[in-house]
Amino acid sequence: MIYLTRRERFSSAHRMFRQGLSDEENMKIYGKCSNPQWHGHNYVLKVTVKGEVDTVTGYFMNATRLRDILQEKVIVKLDHKNMNLETDFMAGKVATTENLAMAIWQELEDALAKEGAILHCVRVEETENNYVEYYG
Amino acid sequence: MIYLTRRERFSSAHRMFRQGLSDEENMKIYGKCSNPQWHGHNYVLKVTVKGEVDTVTGYFMNATRLRDILQEKVIVKLDHKNMNLETDFMAGKVATTENLAMAIWQELEDALAKEGAILHCVRVEETENNYVEYYG
Amino acid sequence: MIYLTRRERFSSAHRMFRQGLSDEENMKIYGKCSNPQWHGHNYVLKVTVKGEVDTVTGYFMNATRLRDILQEKVIVKLDHKNMNLETDFMAGKVATTENLAMAIWQELEDALAKEGAILHCVRVEETENNYVEYYG
Amino acid sequence: MIYLTRRERFSSAHRMFRQGLSDEENMKIYGKCSNPQWHGHNYVLKVTVKGEVDTVTGYFMNATRLRDILQEKVIVKLDHKNMNLETDFMAGKVATTENLAMAIWQELEDALAKEGAILHCVRVEETENNYVEYYG
Amino acid sequence: MIYLTRRERFSSAHRMFRQGLSDEENMKIYGKCSNPQWHGHNYVLKVTVKGEVDTVTGYFMNATRLRDILQEKVIVKLDHKNMNLETDFMAGKVATTENLAMAIWQELEDALAKEGAILHCVRVEETENNYVEYYG
Amino acid sequence: MIYLTRRERFSSAHRMFRQGLSDEENMKIYGKCSNPQWHGHNYVLKVTVKGEVDTVTGYFMNATRLRDILQEKVIVKLDHKNMNLETDFMAGKVATTENLAMAIWQELEDALAKEGAILHCVRVEETENNYVEYYG
Repeated sequence: MIYLTRRERFSSAHRMFRQGLSDEENMKIYGKCSNPQWHGHNYVLKVTVKGEVDTVTGYFMNATRLRDILQEKVIVKLDHKNMNLETDFMAGKVATTENLAMAIWQELEDALAKEGAILHCVRVEETENNYVEYYG
Repeated sequence: MIYLTRRERFSSAHRMFRQGLSDEENMKIYGKCSNPQWHGHNYVLKVTVKGEVDTVTGYFMNATRLRDILQEKVIVKLDHKNMNLETDFMAGKVATTENLAMAIWQELEDALAKEGAILHCVRVEETENNYVEYYG
Repeated sequence: MIYLTRRERFSSAHRMFRQGLSDEENMKIYGKCSNPQWHGHNYVLKVTVKGEVDTVTGYFMNATRLRDILQEKVIVKLDHKNMNLETDFMAGKVATTENLAMAIWQELEDALAKEGAILHCVRVEETENNYVEYYG
Repeated sequence: MIYLTRRERFSSAHRMFRQGLSDEENMKIYGKCSNPQWHGHNYVLKVTVKGEVDTVTGYFMNATRLRDILQEKVIVKLDHKNMNLETDFMAGKVATTENLAMAIWQELEDALAKEGAILHCVRVEETENNYVEYYG
Repeated sequence: MIYLTRRERFSSAHRMFRQGLSDEENMKIYGKCSNPQWHGHNYVLKVTVKGEVDTVTGYFMNATRLRDILQEKVIVKLDHKNMNLETDFMAGKVATTENLAMAIWQELEDALAKEGAILHCVRVEETENNYVEYYG
Repeated sequence: MIYLTRRERFSSAHRMFRQGLSDEENMKIYGKCSNPQWHGHNYVLKVTVKGEVDTVTGYFMNATRLRDILQEKVIVKLDHKNMNLETDFMAGKVATTENLAMAIWQELEDALAKEGAILHCVRVEETENNYVEYYG
């Protein structure tokens, strides 16, 4: 088994809040991350897939193909978007990095399996000091 | 003369658009950066000041004091904010990195002069691939 | 299960040596890292905790709370300190990165468990070329 | 068990292609990475070893010794070389990052075992956006 | 005046040597960088342009337009190429970072002037430890 | 004129204090940086030299030669040392980054001139958030 990781980036607006709670209640839970006027980040996404190397080609999945799938399934839906309002796979969810990583996993798992790659890890970095990893 | 640089970070939502133009016209000029639903970035701010080193203390301005001024004058007004809607010194301006760098210069110049430091450069990095520098 | 990592930094002086050995003997084992006059590093600490995401809040532990615990339990005891002479949890230990990572684990495990977070990994980076990971 | 990682760098020329195929056929499979005139990268190698910490010395393997083994067994054979033409352990292999990581594992496993260190992971980063990990 | 910098990357093979000298003589001057079998790097290019901000648009040159010019004039001629053999603007020159930076300046100056931007600096980073800057 | 920059690193212990003042008085001026038990940093040094490119060799100074001079004149005197107690060119000076940058300039200027290179800038980075530049 070998593990291949591709790094992509997206810049999104978001806000952490729970529907049904007032802005004040959300501020108590999420602090400044709940600002009703939004804020945003340069997110870094690292997706790791695993597979057996084909001895003829020397890989199990072309890194360019991995990049294209990440772009099509994830990045175009998040980059220069408001993830609360515009990203279909985040609809109705609190826009935490944790929920984002799990939602990205759902978007990618089957598409990668069709390429013969097993999704191993979705890592989402929100700032240089915080990141989340999900292994399914 | 010696030059001292302090690096700070802030995460903001913004949108590039000109008042008086339609969303379509703004999209023609600014592309996806004009998304009416906002997007955001982890901005990096690097402020360089210059001065003559005091031979007794070994510096002309304490880096901690520089940090405090940047925090008070700039970062609290931008971090986890929507710079178009909430940052006083960006009111009525197109929220380009260029305008942001020049506005930050205005906020800092006098406050730094009172400390005996000459503002030399304001650098604002919007992504790992783009940044702007202003020297007054 | 989801994994959350927080990055913190501290700047410490240290020296690697074993009590009971002469400076010459320590230099044979630890080389320049055993300099009796001390040297120091900008250490990077990355602490990873794991837990089940609460579907209501969208996380299992607030990253700000994680930061506060790291600051209180670890960073204040190491930053701008001499870890051999001033850091209680390093007393009597050789100040290797390995021992440092294991000692930090001891300081954090219970405090994090009280927050409902399982400590997964303590990573200590001494330079850009060397780091150590401890998983308990 | 504790994990120690050492980072090294090497700058190599390479080309991905399969012997027996024409340049055109190789370009179909590997794209621009198959350019017959070569291209190159600043590779980053991260090798992780594991072991039980010796309570007397505070480590299980000196990081300097790990560096020396990586230099002797791997870096001198790749740095400022053409890995297709000059690196013995890549002879006859497609020069993918995957094959490179597995070949480096073979070069290192026994040499590290002689030092009492168990090889845990070989990570090869080809660009800032792509890397491969091999765990044996 | 405001300064805008765009960062791009390219991966090239090269070799430093002077025509008319033997491989041995070239190795004396350029060391391992003169390896006749080639080596390569992930180069980083940072191009800085300057201009007066248009008060209506908030910039003097769109960063996307700057990126497109760098791609068209420079990156496509260097990325995944052998700069000695395939890059027209390096023909007949020793492939030092210094010559590369000066040649890139020549390629860009007029194209940028047509956009109303004054080329200020071409910076080429060969490794994380070496870079060259040219100001015309 | 072209500008060549070389990056080197050193790990030192230091303390900021003025002789003749008590520890308490020094703490008032320099804060935690004045800890009498020392602390330390991974410093990054970037030295920029300038010159006219020799059209025959393609450079004005070999980057390897620049590295060797930095190592011999500066790095060996600072790396894994206590700069207050062991670095000759810091004797009697407050160990600020400002004084360090100016002292390094003195150490390098003549040695570089003998190589035909004009020293342009000494940059010393103390942490990822603070650095100082000196231009003579």
